[in-house]
Amino acid sequence: MKIYDWPTGPYPARVRIALAEKQMLSRIKFVQINLWKGEHKTADFRTKNYSGTVPILELDDGTFLAECTAITVYLDTLDGTPTLTGRTPREKGVIQMMTKRAEIEMLDAISIYFHHATPGLGPKVELYQNREWGLYQRDKALRGMHYFDALLKKQPFIAGENFSMADIAVIGGFIFAAVVKLPIPQECSALLAWYARMQERPSVRDQLAIVSPQH
Amino acid sequence: MKIYDWPTGPYPARVRIALAEKQMLSRIKFVQINLWKGEHKTADFRTKNYSGTVPILELDDGTFLAECTAITVYLDTLDGTPTLTGRTPREKGVIQMMTKRAEIEMLDAISIYFHHATPGLGPKVELYQNREWGLYQRDKALRGMHYFDALLKKQPFIAGENFSMADIAVIGGFIFAAVVKLPIPQECSALLAWYARMQERPSVRDQLAIVSPQH
Repeated sequence: MKIYDWPTGPYPARVRIALAEKQMLSRIKFVQINLWKGEHKTADFRTKNYSGTVPILELDDGTFLAECTAITVYLDTLDGTPTLTGRTPREKGVIQMMTKRAEIEMLDAISIYFHHATPGLGPKVELYQNREWGLYQRDKALRGMHYFDALLKKQPFIAGENFSMADIAVIGGFIFAAVVKLPIPQECSALLAWYARMQERPSVRDQLAIVSPQH
Repeated sequence: MKIYDWPTGPYPARVRIALAEKQMLSRIKFVQINLWKGEHKTADFRTKNYSGTVPILELDDGTFLAECTAITVYLDTLDGTPTLTGRTPREKGVIQMMTKRAEIEMLDAISIYFHHATPGLGPKVELYQNREWGLYQRDKALRGMHYFDALLKKQPFIAGENFSMADIAVIGGFIFAAVVKLPIPQECSALLAWYARMQERPSVRDQLAIVSPQH
């Protein structure tokens, strides 16, 4: 299998953490797509992923899988023993919901802030920016951090009692917050304590070292 | 089980189509949340779904499941015989990807157009609008329709050879396009032919009659 990757990108890091959790990193060939050169926006790349985002997983049969959740579900169910996306219907539903919520309320919001209210990937890549929308999403992300903080006062992981794909999505949010220098509010003590615990996992620690050596 | 619903909403219709496909409609008690009165944005509702959207599925144990994909995965795996979300890892991955793509490139884009560049749900609900962003998303949705049209020239369903949750997401896009009077481009003949076929399914036909009697 092949992954179209960018080492410091928050979304590619999500899939690499999932691969590390599944002990599958060595089975993947990584191909670099330079986001700063806009290689993910070319016509050729868009034949692989119409939405023009990384990561993409290319299966051995030539199928391209885009979207972190889709890739993670595929990888996690491949060996018949899901550990990241839920075993029971209820676990699957809750993990899917919380992963989406992590995207909507934190990770994607920070991504929009980056691409619209900061120089983002530079003028050759960011062909359209809406600064007001970017700032609105930054504020939404800050509210989202308080939501997850309140949640983590009541339960140890984002989707409940176990580490899951939803934790990885919030980790993606932390990675992107560091990229855009958006500080996590100090009063979010449960969220910060959870992130400290996350960094004790080898899968997370190793990928954070790649994303940001000084993390 | 209970669903917090709004009969004419495109997103609630997605879950009702899934329920009809699974022959589970009779097992659900529906509770109406009036979107035009902003009942989905109240503090009380947000304790059930922080993101303030319908539908939500409330399980008998009191768990709230939000997000159409999460709810559909739950419902589809409940009886051990998934028909909408994939059986093999590859099917699951492709259906997850195409459902997300239907949201990003069509359904969610039309939703943003509605809420930001039209009166939306009215001034008491739409407390912040960004008209330029709404218009940008409308144009993105029109491009998305051409993408799905090209796809459906090559395969019978959105995720390949079988009807799935991804088809339901694009049907949601058609429902929202009708709400905002955004015409599907006539040149998208494969997309329009697919939609005509979708309406032959009782699950889709019955829900379209509820969403829009003159559909």
